[in-house]
Amino acid sequence: MTYNGVERDGQTRTQGGYSNKIVADENYVLRIPDNLPMDRTAPLLCAGITMYSPLMHWKAGPGKKVGIIGLGGLGHMGVKIAHALDAEVSVLSHSLKKQDEAKKMGADKFYATTSSDQESFEKLKGYFDLIINTLSVEIDWNRYLNLLTLDGTMVVVGLPENETPLGAASLINARRSLAGSVIGGIRETQAMLDFCSKHNIASDIELLQIQKVNEAYPRVVKSDVRYRFVIDTKSLD
Amino acid sequence: MTYNGVERDGQTRTQGGYSNKIVADENYVLRIPDNLPMDRTAPLLCAGITMYSPLMHWKAGPGKKVGIIGLGGLGHMGVKIAHALDAEVSVLSHSLKKQDEAKKMGADKFYATTSSDQESFEKLKGYFDLIINTLSVEIDWNRYLNLLTLDGTMVVVGLPENETPLGAASLINARRSLAGSVIGGIRETQAMLDFCSKHNIASDIELLQIQKVNEAYPRVVKSDVRYRFVIDTKSLD
Repeated sequence: MTYNGVERDGQTRTQGGYSNKIVADENYVLRIPDNLPMDRTAPLLCAGITMYSPLMHWKAGPGKKVGIIGLGGLGHMGVKIAHALDAEVSVLSHSLKKQDEAKKMGADKFYATTSSDQESFEKLKGYFDLIINTLSVEIDWNRYLNLLTLDGTMVVVGLPENETPLGAASLINARRSLAGSVIGGIRETQAMLDFCSKHNIASDIELLQIQKVNEAYPRVVKSDVRYRFVIDTKSLD
Repeated sequence: MTYNGVERDGQTRTQGGYSNKIVADENYVLRIPDNLPMDRTAPLLCAGITMYSPLMHWKAGPGKKVGIIGLGGLGHMGVKIAHALDAEVSVLSHSLKKQDEAKKMGADKFYATTSSDQESFEKLKGYFDLIINTLSVEIDWNRYLNLLTLDGTMVVVGLPENETPLGAASLINARRSLAGSVIGGIRETQAMLDFCSKHNIASDIELLQIQKVNEAYPRVVKSDVRYRFVIDTKSLD
C-alpha cells in the first residue's frame, strides 16, 4: 500500500504523499492542468474523483435532481461537480449551518435532516434521481431511499463501520437501487481533472505546515474543516 | 384492492380471481396467446412478470451470468425465462434436492447454499452479472452481493418481514447495486405473455378444485408445491 506499507526492496516503509520524491510508473501519473492551483487540486485526486465517478456513471446532468448527503470534503466537491454538470443540486445536511456556503458552491437547495425535521423528508418523497451519501457514519438508509423517484439510485461512497438495517420495501417500491462506488480509475481521474480545469473547480482547503498536523487532527475528527486540510510539502524541507 | 376490498358501489366485497365473472377496463385486459394452456398461464400474470421484468430491465441475455436464489413459484419461472433469453442460468438453492428438475427447466448450474457449503460461495465470488433473490425470508445479503462481478446487480423481488443488516463494503467493492422490483406494467405483461408463447414457456402447476384449498394451504406454507397451485374456476359452479 502507498502509506505505511513496504517498498519493493522488501524493507523500506512507504511514505506515499508525505515523500519528498517518488518514482512512479508513467501509466499512473496524472497531468495537472495549468489553471488549477496545486494546493486546491490535491484533494481532487481523492474527494474529487470519488464524487465525479458516480455522478458520471449514474448520469447526473440537465434535468436530473441530485441530492448530496453531507457537506464535508466529499460533499462539497459533489456539489461543485454536479452543479457544473447542470444537474439540480440539493444538499441534505444535519443542520442549516452551511447553507450559505453550499449555495455559493452551486447548491440549488438545502435541507436539514435532523430527526426533528420530518418536513424535509415528507416534502422530498420520490424527488431525487440520484442521491450520493458521503457520510461514514450509519444513517437510516430506508429513510433516504424513500426520497428517490422511479429507477432512482442512492450511491454510498463512505464506509460506515457497522452494518445498517435495510428493508426490501424501500427498494421494491419504484424499482430503486442502493449502490456503492469507490474512487475511480486513472483515465477517469484525468477526465475529472480536465473537467475541473474547464469549469474552474477546485477544493476549498485549509493549507497547513506539516509541523501543525497534530493540532489539525482533532479538527478532522470533529469534522471541523472547511473543507479539506492540505499539507504544504515545502514544509517538509 | 382486487381481493377483499370494496367495489365501486361502496359495499360489495371484491373477489378478484375468485369471481365467476368480472367487468374490466379494456386497458387492463391481456391477450392470452392460443398456444398457452390457460391453467399453466395463470401464474405467469404474477410470478412470470415478476421475473421477466427485472430480467429484461437488467439485460439478462447472451454472455450474461444470471443467478436465481430460490426455486419456487418465482424462481422456476426465472430459470425458464432467463434460459430462453440465452443467459447462463445458475440456481442457488438451500439443498441440491431440486437439481434435476431445475436442469430440465433450463438451468445450466445448480449450487447448494446451506451454511455448511462455504465452497459454493468461495467458488462463485465475483461471478454473476445479475442475481435475482426470490426469497421472502431474510438471508445474508452481504454474502450474496459478494458473488457479483463489477457493476453487478442483485434484485430483490420477495418481501422479507424484517430489515436485513447490510454492509457498505459489499456495495462499494466492484460498484455493485442492490435493487428491488415489483411485478410489472400491463404493456410489459403482454410482452411477457408473447415471449412465453414464442418460447413455449408456462408455469409448472398443480391444478386443484376450489373445494380443496384448505388442504392445499398448509403445503403452500411449507413451500411444498411444484411450483404453483392453480384453482380450476370451473369448480366454482
